Amino acid sequence: MDFGSENTSPVHPAFAQAFVTANEGYATNFEAERWTERALRALRDFFETDELWAFTVSTGTAANAIALGAMVPPYGAILCHWDAHIATDECGAPEMYSFGARQVPLAGDHGRISPEALSKHLREARFGVVHAVQPAVLSLTNLTEAGTAYSPDEVAALTAVARKAGLGVHLDGARFANAAASRNASPAELSWKAGIDILTLGTTKSGSFGAETIVAFSPKYNTALAFLRKRGGHFAPKSRFLGAQIETYVQDGLWLANARHANRAARRMSEGLAGLAGVTLIHPTEGNEVFVSMPDAMIDALARAGCKFQRDWRMDPRHHRFVTSWATSDDDVDRMLDVCRSAEGSDARRP
Amino acid sequence: MDFGSENTSPVHPAFAQAFVTANEGYATNFEAERWTERALRALRDFFETDELWAFTVSTGTAANAIALGAMVPPYGAILCHWDAHIATDECGAPEMYSFGARQVPLAGDHGRISPEALSKHLREARFGVVHAVQPAVLSLTNLTEAGTAYSPDEVAALTAVARKAGLGVHLDGARFANAAASRNASPAELSWKAGIDILTLGTTKSGSFGAETIVAFSPKYNTALAFLRKRGGHFAPKSRFLGAQIETYVQDGLWLANARHANRAARRMSEGLAGLAGVTLIHPTEGNEVFVSMPDAMIDALARAGCKFQRDWRMDPRHHRFVTSWATSDDDVDRMLDVCRSAEGSDARRP
Amino acid sequence: MDFGSENTSPVHPAFAQAFVTANEGYATNFEAERWTERALRALRDFFETDELWAFTVSTGTAANAIALGAMVPPYGAILCHWDAHIATDECGAPEMYSFGARQVPLAGDHGRISPEALSKHLREARFGVVHAVQPAVLSLTNLTEAGTAYSPDEVAALTAVARKAGLGVHLDGARFANAAASRNASPAELSWKAGIDILTLGTTKSGSFGAETIVAFSPKYNTALAFLRKRGGHFAPKSRFLGAQIETYVQDGLWLANARHANRAARRMSEGLAGLAGVTLIHPTEGNEVFVSMPDAMIDALARAGCKFQRDWRMDPRHHRFVTSWATSDDDVDRMLDVCRSAEGSDARRP
Amino acid sequence: MDFGSENTSPVHPAFAQAFVTANEGYATNFEAERWTERALRALRDFFETDELWAFTVSTGTAANAIALGAMVPPYGAILCHWDAHIATDECGAPEMYSFGARQVPLAGDHGRISPEALSKHLREARFGVVHAVQPAVLSLTNLTEAGTAYSPDEVAALTAVARKAGLGVHLDGARFANAAASRNASPAELSWKAGIDILTLGTTKSGSFGAETIVAFSPKYNTALAFLRKRGGHFAPKSRFLGAQIETYVQDGLWLANARHANRAARRMSEGLAGLAGVTLIHPTEGNEVFVSMPDAMIDALARAGCKFQRDWRMDPRHHRFVTSWATSDDDVDRMLDVCRSAEGSDARRP
Repeated sequence: MDFGSENTSPVHPAFAQAFVTANEGYATNFEAERWTERALRALRDFFETDELWAFTVSTGTAANAIALGAMVPPYGAILCHWDAHIATDECGAPEMYSFGARQVPLAGDHGRISPEALSKHLREARFGVVHAVQPAVLSLTNLTEAGTAYSPDEVAALTAVARKAGLGVHLDGARFANAAASRNASPAELSWKAGIDILTLGTTKSGSFGAETIVAFSPKYNTALAFLRKRGGHFAPKSRFLGAQIETYVQDGLWLANARHANRAARRMSEGLAGLAGVTLIHPTEGNEVFVSMPDAMIDALARAGCKFQRDWRMDPRHHRFVTSWATSDDDVDRMLDVCRSAEGSDARRP
Repeated sequence: MDFGSENTSPVHPAFAQAFVTANEGYATNFEAERWTERALRALRDFFETDELWAFTVSTGTAANAIALGAMVPPYGAILCHWDAHIATDECGAPEMYSFGARQVPLAGDHGRISPEALSKHLREARFGVVHAVQPAVLSLTNLTEAGTAYSPDEVAALTAVARKAGLGVHLDGARFANAAASRNASPAELSWKAGIDILTLGTTKSGSFGAETIVAFSPKYNTALAFLRKRGGHFAPKSRFLGAQIETYVQDGLWLANARHANRAARRMSEGLAGLAGVTLIHPTEGNEVFVSMPDAMIDALARAGCKFQRDWRMDPRHHRFVTSWATSDDDVDRMLDVCRSAEGSDARRP
Repeated sequence: MDFGSENTSPVHPAFAQAFVTANEGYATNFEAERWTERALRALRDFFETDELWAFTVSTGTAANAIALGAMVPPYGAILCHWDAHIATDECGAPEMYSFGARQVPLAGDHGRISPEALSKHLREARFGVVHAVQPAVLSLTNLTEAGTAYSPDEVAALTAVARKAGLGVHLDGARFANAAASRNASPAELSWKAGIDILTLGTTKSGSFGAETIVAFSPKYNTALAFLRKRGGHFAPKSRFLGAQIETYVQDGLWLANARHANRAARRMSEGLAGLAGVTLIHPTEGNEVFVSMPDAMIDALARAGCKFQRDWRMDPRHHRFVTSWATSDDDVDRMLDVCRSAEGSDARRP
Repeated sequence: MDFGSENTSPVHPAFAQAFVTANEGYATNFEAERWTERALRALRDFFETDELWAFTVSTGTAANAIALGAMVPPYGAILCHWDAHIATDECGAPEMYSFGARQVPLAGDHGRISPEALSKHLREARFGVVHAVQPAVLSLTNLTEAGTAYSPDEVAALTAVARKAGLGVHLDGARFANAAASRNASPAELSWKAGIDILTLGTTKSGSFGAETIVAFSPKYNTALAFLRKRGGHFAPKSRFLGAQIETYVQDGLWLANARHANRAARRMSEGLAGLAGVTLIHPTEGNEVFVSMPDAMIDALARAGCKFQRDWRMDPRHHRFVTSWATSDDDVDRMLDVCRSAEGSDARRP
């Protein structure tokens, strides 16, 4: 029972097989080979557009930081939810890749940016005044860091406000597949059709070894993206192994199957927990993450049972996170619920 | 016949097997797992010291840039050979990770820094004067970019000069194994025993999927290395696959076997070419790289035969590079030599 | 009637005279002259300590940014009030000079950081975790941007919390003299005795041509400060004119006389406005700044009378700022109050 | 007798008077006043073009670094003479303001870049290849750091090569007036008419308190220049004192009178020295700087006589620099020559 992160799971067999296949014979390095080319073609099909360029890297932090670095000037500001991964868990990588642009935290319930908060900030920003940093990019996350899923309309409502003020829009899609599965929306509907300029598409949390793609829906960022990727040390010489992962992810519906599986497991857990005394869901379970407060006795019981999860999320002792993945079985979830149930009622200290 | 780079070769079976083995069950992410721990232990054996910390990343550019960024202040200077990889092929990554430190190119034959050039530069550097950038790091490369190998004594002679002036010393070891094999020196003799503070140890060119380790022989850089790696987007969540590669590389002598194999292949090629009319070796062949000038007819013949190599190295039409790897067979080399031989004498346009 | 900023006033005659005096004969450039030496001695007297080093620059933004850049690593965070000048009016200069450190906005009434907000942030900061930026500096402002003055005890209470968590403390003292005059505290009591590591001491708003000094109460930042100042282009060749301003400011009590004068003028304005219908003081007037909301009719009347002030402070149409300086006369204030009085009661649209 | 630098001289009376005049009454801060406006108008007359924008700062290092930072991307390269001030005496400020762009040193006699060296570098640069930094700006200096003066034709020959390769061109004009006086060329002829995009125009070395202007001959850099200046802490609140200096410099021919005076003094010194035994001119004296090697006895005699100059220029014990300024009198020069003459022949150790 490991619900610590999708990244603690083993790699999905399809990706393991892709590495075996890609390792046949010689291949030109630095993307001048057919796996990268096939990945690009597959992504264009996946997103239903030929106006798409892709820059693959090995981590999500790199993907976000390079994307944002290409979009924002050093004197610019990146508007994002206060709880966004770029704000909380990337050690200032976006600041590094943008040479000191500022992240501006915006409010909103359950990880979603409030359109009102966004509008208010933009109204009060001093555009053109050299004393003030200049809002340049809106960065969304879908799934949000609270495990909720924006719908295409919700994304479009926010991007419309941003675009009117001249901002570009970035989407952190580390769990993009889970959002698409949750909202039953196509990749195109949740990205460029809803006003996204650059999407960072994650495959790592979906079961790959480690491959994230900066998907640019406009060529205007390409030069900056290409040089920033190299300069950041993220241009992989044996690129065929990144290309092979991307292709594997998008083809044959693996992305969707894995996401649906993980989402279903989280819903199963969420529904099971909701019925327990002393357990409160902190955010609605819309993807593959469950955020709860629960009695100490349950936490202790889970620890004794060897169940792994993120305790004290955001340093809050009443806030815990459980994540499911392609590898989570119904049995894993049921065993976890059994442990919780066994501890039900035996502790009243929390919450 | 592909002599373009070690990185065009397929991955060595031992690394492929390591991935299969590492992919069993769940493992805590971000290095809190046993593969990373085992890799660290293996590296301490390899380098014969427990005063060693390791930070693994996915590319050589990242390894060099993070190491240098941790060693040099923004107002500092990095002294390196004008032909060093950090100077020529990393798009200013060291400048990015050091927030603008300067690379100072030094002279020296065949890729080796001349001790006199180093001494002269340090004598004329204005230490303590705020108008001048301050020499802070000497960066060596072994194998050098000219394919030559420093001996332990040659390394020690340079590091002694650097240390006397208060500089730290970095060694770019993308082809460290080839240098060690060439000089019949142990990893310890070619690194900390010869005065190296941080070594970036490559496994990618030795046949892995992609894993480079920043090996620090002093704890004083650890905080900066750890945060800079994360901030650069190089802290891999599925760290077990990096750890597994490092362990595979250093254990059972794979590193040395692969390096010896590649070096032998290069020597075979070099000796074969040396006997051909119109062919001149530009640098002595001390590792797994052969640098030559050759008649146009040979170049054309090689191209027609589908042989891959780096033409016009450093934009010089009389300078070509051939690289061998663990995967290069004697037959590959002999076929290449046959093609060259077939074109011998038919062209006098180029020397 | 110009209450737009202290910086719209003419330069005080003492500074003008200092330039005439300093312009006699030749003087070595770059601080190797006697004016800089005398300024340093004068500052050591002023702050009652010989453990003091000074780095003079021409703007307050430069002073703050260089000081912070020397104190915080790129992966660090600067904790400051959300309304601080470094956060609102310096276009990210602290981010530039720190190579991307993050400013973390803290809450607190009337421009003062709440000790509870500071403690809470530090309690929840993930020290030592590479995914999170690391709190490194507490930056205070005195006078605050709301025109209020911290007492020595209030400063000490905040610095104690910061130091316990290992942070350094910076004080933006663009209006340090006004704070000292307001609190009847000595420069030492309001700075190093209260736990400040580096103070940026402004003379510009006190009537000089433009000279701000980074005052470091510990030598440990000196190397970074010296090189960062030069690298930022802030090491003035004709340094004697900066030194002469610093000396003029601290000697003969000019700093205190000017501050008391300005504070008295602001109090006169504040007391006069407080009696007018429809006028509300937004912050208590503790220094030389008056923040009010007032009826539109008064605003219009002031505009018609040619009175200058900052309308719509922080983009808020109900928030206006009036600043007094050494040059403000009682008559200026009284005329301004007369204009307001003349418009009293004629407008009810605004509060 | 002080020939250490123009900046050791007193400020010229016209600039002192300008400060008195500018200090009358209140003036809006941050350039929204008439002195800045008048300076802009004066510069447009001076350069005979209305396509000109100006950004004034307080030091030459700031002017150069901000200009270059606006022109070059972080992955770009700045091509300059190896002896250029930006390369030798600004502690990497251009690297800081460009977020890590690289300075590439080019060869050429007497401080002038050789057109062949420039062409060769551009021919071998790997444009469009992400592994290599991309040449983006050619930076010239006039007077050069060797005290020589490019003619308009020489400038145009170099800018033509640069423009053909897509580079912008920057001119460091700290001693622009001396170059114009030397070459009898108009400001326009030596700048935009010869292909310069941005000129950093110095007044400090011409006798002002300290004012340098970034003169942009195209609006395309304006946004970057404005924000970078603020972000670097170089946007002066009491801007009227910068504007007043610029206006003073360009009006009434002060710039040319001062430059001619200084150039004449240098020529007098140079001609005097040329006739002395053991003295060799290292560079031709084309402006207000004299570079010589001279016997130790002369150096000692000058030191004993209290004569100031730059000994051991570039750390070379046979290389000394003497600079003249608006304040240098014929008598100063003659006394210096007398001292040298008195020591003539008494020492043969150098050179």
